[in-house]
Amino acid sequence: MREVFHQSLEDVRARLVEIGELVTVAIDKATRAFSTSDVALAEEVIEADQVIDDKAIALDELAIQILARQQPVARDLRIVVAALRVSASLERMGDIAEHIAQLTRMRFPERAIPKGLKNTFTQMGELDVEVARTLTELLRTEDLALVETLRNLDDQLDDRHLAVFEKVLSDNWQGEAAATVDATLASRYLERFADHAVSVAKKVAYLATGDWTPDTNTIAVIAASGELLD
Amino acid sequence: MREVFHQSLEDVRARLVEIGELVTVAIDKATRAFSTSDVALAEEVIEADQVIDDKAIALDELAIQILARQQPVARDLRIVVAALRVSASLERMGDIAEHIAQLTRMRFPERAIPKGLKNTFTQMGELDVEVARTLTELLRTEDLALVETLRNLDDQLDDRHLAVFEKVLSDNWQGEAAATVDATLASRYLERFADHAVSVAKKVAYLATGDWTPDTNTIAVIAASGELLD
Repeated sequence: MREVFHQSLEDVRARLVEIGELVTVAIDKATRAFSTSDVALAEEVIEADQVIDDKAIALDELAIQILARQQPVARDLRIVVAALRVSASLERMGDIAEHIAQLTRMRFPERAIPKGLKNTFTQMGELDVEVARTLTELLRTEDLALVETLRNLDDQLDDRHLAVFEKVLSDNWQGEAAATVDATLASRYLERFADHAVSVAKKVAYLATGDWTPDTNTIAVIAASGELLD
Repeated sequence: MREVFHQSLEDVRARLVEIGELVTVAIDKATRAFSTSDVALAEEVIEADQVIDDKAIALDELAIQILARQQPVARDLRIVVAALRVSASLERMGDIAEHIAQLTRMRFPERAIPKGLKNTFTQMGELDVEVARTLTELLRTEDLALVETLRNLDDQLDDRHLAVFEKVLSDNWQGEAAATVDATLASRYLERFADHAVSVAKKVAYLATGDWTPDTNTIAVIAASGELLD
């Protein structure tokens, strides 16, 4: 029974990694489409989101089957419940990639990235791809050092997000309202993407350390990894 | 055992209703604070969000205890898993109320609602309060007619959300970039609030009808309630 359970957990993990890989492809394509106004690439992302949604539903179904058939308790139970939450976050990250693709398509043939913000948005896109890759690696390896990497990437995204607002609200911003709307939405999406990844990373850390008080545990993991609390 | 389980489920339901009531208060205060630039009211919402977060964590803990001790299967198991998801959505709705309060505080003593959009945002605020009230009632009563009410409210919010963009992108929009940013973010938050409520309503419907294929079930419920599919 124990062995069956571990085999099931390996299946769950493999599926989470697979969804993580699909989300990585989605955010890579979406941010490149956004940077280059590539509407065909944006369409690919929009179409592929259904695959991510379907795989997340299938994974949830598997997790519920495991709960029903194997009735795990204690840490095993929490791992399965955490998988349900991680799957929800990954699905939401896929939705964000889709939103960025939709923004690209909506403005086409105009460029969705407002003038003067191309570098910032290109950097944010690259950071989000790195976020997705790191998160997938964390799901694959449970290497908790990657939790710190993700928090660091999230901080860099938060800085860029603030920089977008500073630019848009500065006296020399000459963008029209459409450019301001696009900058606001895109920056918010790109920043939220990393928030979801950090939230998943906290759950992985929480499971890996076996301390079931989420906050305390997160603090312990982060303190252990040498990062200052924020 | 069966009776113990039903008592536990009643406890879960009562807690979901309680969180729904807190979210209703939060969105009511947040949207009124936003309309009237009442920074004290906004502060109340920001402070109270921690209570919602804590209650959601406590509910999740209860749900996990129920899974561990009572090992429900079939429909019972799905109800408990759904409760975990509903709690996550309610917590997120509380976060959105907090974001609206933060927007109000950030602009104070300026008014956060851009000129020319006061009516639209006041309506959106009132619709969201109605959404929160209806959702809480649905959690309390499982009256599936309320699923249709929520979808209807969500449609009205989507219309207002589009109206905000039409206004901001129209030739006679004279708002500065700050007003455009605020309108974009506030409209997005107010619209997302209802999306979360509809997502919860679908889960309630899915549980109430006992058809475990989420999409088919949602379709069946909605078709039964006479609304056209969208």
